[in-house]
Amino acid sequence: MELGDFIYGFDLAGTFVFAITGALVAIRKKLDLYGVFILAIVTALGGGMLRDTMLGRTPPMAFQDFAYMIAATLGALVVWFFYSYVQRQEKLLRILDAVGLALFTVIGAQVALETGASWYAAIGMGILTGTGGGMIRDVLAGQVPFVLQREVYAIACLLGSAAYVLWVVVLNFDPSIGMLLGAGVVAGIRLVAIFKDWHLPQTPPGTT
Amino acid sequence: MELGDFIYGFDLAGTFVFAITGALVAIRKKLDLYGVFILAIVTALGGGMLRDTMLGRTPPMAFQDFAYMIAATLGALVVWFFYSYVQRQEKLLRILDAVGLALFTVIGAQVALETGASWYAAIGMGILTGTGGGMIRDVLAGQVPFVLQREVYAIACLLGSAAYVLWVVVLNFDPSIGMLLGAGVVAGIRLVAIFKDWHLPQTPPGTT
Amino acid sequence: MELGDFIYGFDLAGTFVFAITGALVAIRKKLDLYGVFILAIVTALGGGMLRDTMLGRTPPMAFQDFAYMIAATLGALVVWFFYSYVQRQEKLLRILDAVGLALFTVIGAQVALETGASWYAAIGMGILTGTGGGMIRDVLAGQVPFVLQREVYAIACLLGSAAYVLWVVVLNFDPSIGMLLGAGVVAGIRLVAIFKDWHLPQTPPGTT
Repeated sequence: MELGDFIYGFDLAGTFVFAITGALVAIRKKLDLYGVFILAIVTALGGGMLRDTMLGRTPPMAFQDFAYMIAATLGALVVWFFYSYVQRQEKLLRILDAVGLALFTVIGAQVALETGASWYAAIGMGILTGTGGGMIRDVLAGQVPFVLQREVYAIACLLGSAAYVLWVVVLNFDPSIGMLLGAGVVAGIRLVAIFKDWHLPQTPPGTT
Repeated sequence: MELGDFIYGFDLAGTFVFAITGALVAIRKKLDLYGVFILAIVTALGGGMLRDTMLGRTPPMAFQDFAYMIAATLGALVVWFFYSYVQRQEKLLRILDAVGLALFTVIGAQVALETGASWYAAIGMGILTGTGGGMIRDVLAGQVPFVLQREVYAIACLLGSAAYVLWVVVLNFDPSIGMLLGAGVVAGIRLVAIFKDWHLPQTPPGTT
Repeated sequence: MELGDFIYGFDLAGTFVFAITGALVAIRKKLDLYGVFILAIVTALGGGMLRDTMLGRTPPMAFQDFAYMIAATLGALVVWFFYSYVQRQEKLLRILDAVGLALFTVIGAQVALETGASWYAAIGMGILTGTGGGMIRDVLAGQVPFVLQREVYAIACLLGSAAYVLWVVVLNFDPSIGMLLGAGVVAGIRLVAIFKDWHLPQTPPGTT
């Protein structure tokens, strides 16, 4: 399989999974059917749109390839028609979210390198692509973004995109394996954090 | 009249009307005079700025042509000086909002096609241009965006920009008439939804 | 000293100061260590990222030069490790915020002119660069942006960038002195507003 196909499949899978998380938040916030679709779509496509716009790749990929919209719409439909089933799968959803985060993060870093951005921009774009859609989702739904409050979330993106960039830029190794490695780092850290209930400190040292 | 003049007049009219809705939200949220201006301006110009930035038309048109800022400022001034009168015209305001939405939607789709974007991107940019300013307004004012909660709002944009794109891209007909058609679809659906009190379902099937 | 060095030093100093204000908001909102860093970084770099993306300077400068990230990170670290001390310096923090606002505003206007934007876009970009990071900070932290509520804040940016643009574009005078002048206008107005407790009217004329 070519690297391009590989990335494309990853990207659509991540889009589908993130759309599910967006649709779930929309239903919990009592938005109507349209709100469910919109929130699914911005969650799924928002991070990539921010990335592409900031990299000057306009219009963003999500506006160029209809498959992204279909993947996001399918995620919303699954939640809408199987809501009572989907909402009970909390552990599964967190695992899927970890997988989507992992995919988006390495793709973000990869796209940035492809456009000639520096290693440093690539790490930043990895984090932005992974966490951007969820931040937009939470802001639109009227809640403080999950990523600002919760444990080891964006740190996982930081380490995963750094691993990918190290593999590809510094070591000059095969990018396909690098993507698996980077995604593995993100998903691995997230899953351990979920199952071990890891947290970061919430109060600065010296405060009571 | 040339197509360009036509679009330009539509765009300024939409800017003025959207500025009024932004200023009204600002006063209801007890923002000060400056907040009223800022919210009027971002509501009126935000959708177009998002569109232009995502299409790579930088700097956005609103930063290149002073007339947009003047139209938005006039909208804010009208609200500020005639507030006790304006706030009572609820039905009129909803009609004006439907008109502004219609104008912005078809202009968004038209601009996207002009920059060489696909039919699919054009529909997306129509929706984004129509609803983007209002979403920014609501997020800044600390409320869940109207467009996520209310009935047949962005659906109207979707159908209107699809009608315009069908007319211009598939049928290859005259764009001026296509804009009137697309705007008519958006405004028509919105007005019927307002007067008939149409809503979309709020709970997924199978939930109580 | 060259104009470039001058701007660069100003920009890093503004970044550091704005990161402090972001980190303080994060701690008050009970975000964890990561949230503190993220909020510090978006507050410090968000305005410049918006500006660069809207001007088509992609990827944004903050993704090209690691020094910006270091300056923002230092601001977050200072707050984290010296929180009990920092939070008591309210007056000092407001003065620093005025200085950061002044620096970012004139740099925003200067960068816009450098990319060939009009005088009008330059004033807009000055306001956006000065206030954008703080707006993103407040939206992410779940509060209505300070700039929409408070007194003479963005008005100061407007007058400062107008003064700079007048000096450089109309009078064609030396840009280094123009930056000091513009920054002086912003900081001067803010400091007087803080110490004199200036406000703008909050209710439209004719309302009770």
